[in-house]
Amino acid sequence: MTDKIFRVNMTDLTTSVETVPEAWAGHGGRGLTSTIVAAEVEPTCHPLGPNNKLVFAPGLLSGTVAANSGRLSMGAKSPLTGTIKEANAGGTAAQLFARCGCKALIVEGLPKEDKWYSISLSSAGATLNEESELIGKGNFEIIKTLTDRVDPKFGIITIGQAGEMKLSGANISVKDPDGNIRSGGRGGLGAVMGSKKVKFITVDPGDGKVEIADPEKFKAANRTFAKSLVDHPVTQSLAQYGTNVLVNVINESGGLPTRNFTQGQFEGHDKISGETMFDLIEERGGKPKHNCHAGCVIQCSQIYNDLKGNKLTSGFEYESIWAMGADCCVENLDHIAEADAIMDDIGIDSIETSVAMAVAMEAGVLAFGDGAEACRILREEVTNGTGLGRIIGNGAESVGKAYGMTRVPVVKGQGIPAYDPRAIKGIGITYATSTQGADHTMGYTIATNILGVGGSVDPLTKEGQVELSRNLQIATAAIDSTGMCLFIAFAALDNEECLPAVIDMLNARFGIELTADDVTNLGKHILETEHTFNLKAGFTNLDDRLPEFFYNEPLPPHNVVFDFTGKEIDTFWDFQ
Amino acid sequence: MTDKIFRVNMTDLTTSVETVPEAWAGHGGRGLTSTIVAAEVEPTCHPLGPNNKLVFAPGLLSGTVAANSGRLSMGAKSPLTGTIKEANAGGTAAQLFARCGCKALIVEGLPKEDKWYSISLSSAGATLNEESELIGKGNFEIIKTLTDRVDPKFGIITIGQAGEMKLSGANISVKDPDGNIRSGGRGGLGAVMGSKKVKFITVDPGDGKVEIADPEKFKAANRTFAKSLVDHPVTQSLAQYGTNVLVNVINESGGLPTRNFTQGQFEGHDKISGETMFDLIEERGGKPKHNCHAGCVIQCSQIYNDLKGNKLTSGFEYESIWAMGADCCVENLDHIAEADAIMDDIGIDSIETSVAMAVAMEAGVLAFGDGAEACRILREEVTNGTGLGRIIGNGAESVGKAYGMTRVPVVKGQGIPAYDPRAIKGIGITYATSTQGADHTMGYTIATNILGVGGSVDPLTKEGQVELSRNLQIATAAIDSTGMCLFIAFAALDNEECLPAVIDMLNARFGIELTADDVTNLGKHILETEHTFNLKAGFTNLDDRLPEFFYNEPLPPHNVVFDFTGKEIDTFWDFQ
Repeated sequence: MTDKIFRVNMTDLTTSVETVPEAWAGHGGRGLTSTIVAAEVEPTCHPLGPNNKLVFAPGLLSGTVAANSGRLSMGAKSPLTGTIKEANAGGTAAQLFARCGCKALIVEGLPKEDKWYSISLSSAGATLNEESELIGKGNFEIIKTLTDRVDPKFGIITIGQAGEMKLSGANISVKDPDGNIRSGGRGGLGAVMGSKKVKFITVDPGDGKVEIADPEKFKAANRTFAKSLVDHPVTQSLAQYGTNVLVNVINESGGLPTRNFTQGQFEGHDKISGETMFDLIEERGGKPKHNCHAGCVIQCSQIYNDLKGNKLTSGFEYESIWAMGADCCVENLDHIAEADAIMDDIGIDSIETSVAMAVAMEAGVLAFGDGAEACRILREEVTNGTGLGRIIGNGAESVGKAYGMTRVPVVKGQGIPAYDPRAIKGIGITYATSTQGADHTMGYTIATNILGVGGSVDPLTKEGQVELSRNLQIATAAIDSTGMCLFIAFAALDNEECLPAVIDMLNARFGIELTADDVTNLGKHILETEHTFNLKAGFTNLDDRLPEFFYNEPLPPHNVVFDFTGKEIDTFWDFQ
Repeated sequence: MTDKIFRVNMTDLTTSVETVPEAWAGHGGRGLTSTIVAAEVEPTCHPLGPNNKLVFAPGLLSGTVAANSGRLSMGAKSPLTGTIKEANAGGTAAQLFARCGCKALIVEGLPKEDKWYSISLSSAGATLNEESELIGKGNFEIIKTLTDRVDPKFGIITIGQAGEMKLSGANISVKDPDGNIRSGGRGGLGAVMGSKKVKFITVDPGDGKVEIADPEKFKAANRTFAKSLVDHPVTQSLAQYGTNVLVNVINESGGLPTRNFTQGQFEGHDKISGETMFDLIEERGGKPKHNCHAGCVIQCSQIYNDLKGNKLTSGFEYESIWAMGADCCVENLDHIAEADAIMDDIGIDSIETSVAMAVAMEAGVLAFGDGAEACRILREEVTNGTGLGRIIGNGAESVGKAYGMTRVPVVKGQGIPAYDPRAIKGIGITYATSTQGADHTMGYTIATNILGVGGSVDPLTKEGQVELSRNLQIATAAIDSTGMCLFIAFAALDNEECLPAVIDMLNARFGIELTADDVTNLGKHILETEHTFNLKAGFTNLDDRLPEFFYNEPLPPHNVVFDFTGKEIDTFWDFQ
């Protein structure tokens, strides 16, 4: 089966299956979504207008048995940042895309009539169907209904009410093997899907298989690769406590943004930490380990139950817990979990929306620490699109604008996540220079600044941070193209066998001869493609800056500011 | 009396009187506010943060007996557009500033405590006072209270609730001789004043006089100048019908943006026209002619009464009537007048806010044509800062963002005013290239495109539009520096004696020898100063574009699009 490009035109409601242009053949995941967006989307277009396109692409290794290769990339011009954007998520869809022979699905145009649609994907291509029953519904009801309507094994990609309302914080959500939700968050790609009036996409598992040019070599490399993952101590921590193991670690470093980025430590950190969460999960009969897609050997996800032992949320991540917790000063983990579940259901970014909530708290809309009121606002205001709900649902910059606030932690319009750039300076370089606005996953310097992975760079001094961020951003762009979970980076940085094993798998899959340099060049090329798109969209180096207050307000306890000059930041792009 | 710079530092609550730096000496009005902002404000600063400065400056001829010289300029970095910004208004303050010897008032910093202040200006300088009684009040109550508290002859500059809430549509309002309001609208400078916690400024009339180097020459030139104004047919129309004479004229041209810029003609144009308004004013015992400052020989303002003969609003302008009328499809002039009065009272831009209302109508927040609901939203939602109120009070772009709309008529974040750039192409060049976002007053090509003033350039073809807009933008920057009302431009374009008379007055006032070329160079220099600020703030030529839909959606009845390429637009700056 040769991979194809599936295209859906929402303007004339047609679909097509196309051969893959040569220039796109070596790409997958983020590399492919960014390449297609750069090739086909006018950079100055309105993100919600007819000229934006929404692209889905599984990674180069998705659909194989390679460990942790189940990430689906989604790309478009972002309505939140105005930049090019890629978000990726686990769940089952990426594997099924690959098995359908769909290298990428491109959704373009806007319907002429005020009707909603769904897309069905199978190895035969994409088909369009009108949809009415599920319009206005949340993700959980959609998944439940579709599981009955189609088949529990189908992949499901969906938007909740947030995407329908075209809120800039809207996610695209992907069903996991057990009907939970993984989110393509950041950048409001759910709003792009909503603008195109596509409520959900189903993916038929069919009986297709991904062809492997050298199956033996592939299997051997995967064994080495999987072993490198399970052997790494950080991966092991993730397996036990989930990503939320970081609350105590980052609090200890003094870089846990608290009370809308006024402090670097949170008094209530113990109450929301991974360790406390683990105990609660065990106590209430939840699952501390859970995988978001078949083949994951890390299992950082979990099922978090409420006091009565009923599932409250899953995939309960550090950044979400930090945002509604420390940043909003909410100490009650059940409130944070409830908020997380609501945000999953309406399909809105739990980082962006919670950072927005903290700005609203500083504006006096609700009190710091009032988790119950935050949940009410999410459930009643955001879900129903009231004025306040839209202000918050459009993200932190929107709240700052609505209330005339100056302390608004965003870069290129996107909320800064769970690591203060004053106390952990490498991540500040990533926030400033990332092609997609503030995003820790673009170049996770925390690994080296805090966790001692891949060496050690003092988080409090400027030395080495630009290089660190650059190397990680290049590596990440490449990893994001494979369909691999970013958490393979810890092993890749520390274990000499890990990255060669990934390259062996790529070569065995396609019958090619990539070298480590080729992979680095792929990462550079993706960054360049994305950066060029942004420049054509009107961004300049002056957009590669943090908000003013990070330069002026010292962050306790280290009492440090972000002290990179613009010129120093701009050296990031010197590799081009 | 030598003119001085008055400075108020809100951070340490100090004031000072400073000699005028040599580089600022030849400037007044907009030229001076832009020069000071460019010199003292970091272009990338947050407009509502401590590093922005709010500058007030009377024109070079303000305070003299020169006809129509009573405009006060206000400048800052705009919270609406992010560009440098100057707004100017009539009223009595400019003349009094000049008579106090205040060449400019610079308000800088932000108070450390959560307290409000007022500033008293007199020939001795500025003093700061804490204020509590008038906080939360609208402009009319402020003016009434202060007229009792200080003196009816004092100048008053104030912000309403919109400015206190730092809404991006907030005006700075200036009292006219009769206690009505003239607005420094566009660009949200009221939010900057609100961020600095200055509720109002009073200006002591004192007994100071502006020195004239050559009084006889001045008097003679003023006679010639005033005659040129009253003789011009456009000026005469303005005197009879106010600016609203334009509703029928622009409707006839097919360039009257209707129903959120979907049509170029409004069925209900007769019901909201200047002719109808004149009849209603006469019928109800209002005043069809009224001057906003002493010395105005045009008197385009008026007092518009309600059905019972009580004053409903004054200074009821074409652009405001178009915006709440044709653009929102409201045919009831009393609803439009009521909305105008509410907007004056809360101190919010009647263009920006009404354009925002039309976008909200397209989003389904309220129905097109529902003037009563528009008034309710202004009175209940905007005044009280509800979620919806803030969305609308922050302008058209804010509404577009909140509701995920693509048809949002803004340039650099500022609402496009009353002339459709598809059917009147010259004004489209002004909107695109203006240093301050979409603003008809920056280079009013309507004069030549439609009114046949200063020659004639076909509004429907591209030929000559860039040159027309450029020449007018240069001339306007110079006129905005004199303190003269922009309506002198009609005479200046058609009557050979008008402009030389203004130059004679400038020379007679200061004992200098300016030529016509010097005045043109002044205008160019101001544009360059402003443009350079914007480039340093991160703007590029890609920001000098109209929204996508003007290029794609033909406007009836001429079925024309805006068809300038980016390259053609960019030739605007070739004079630099």
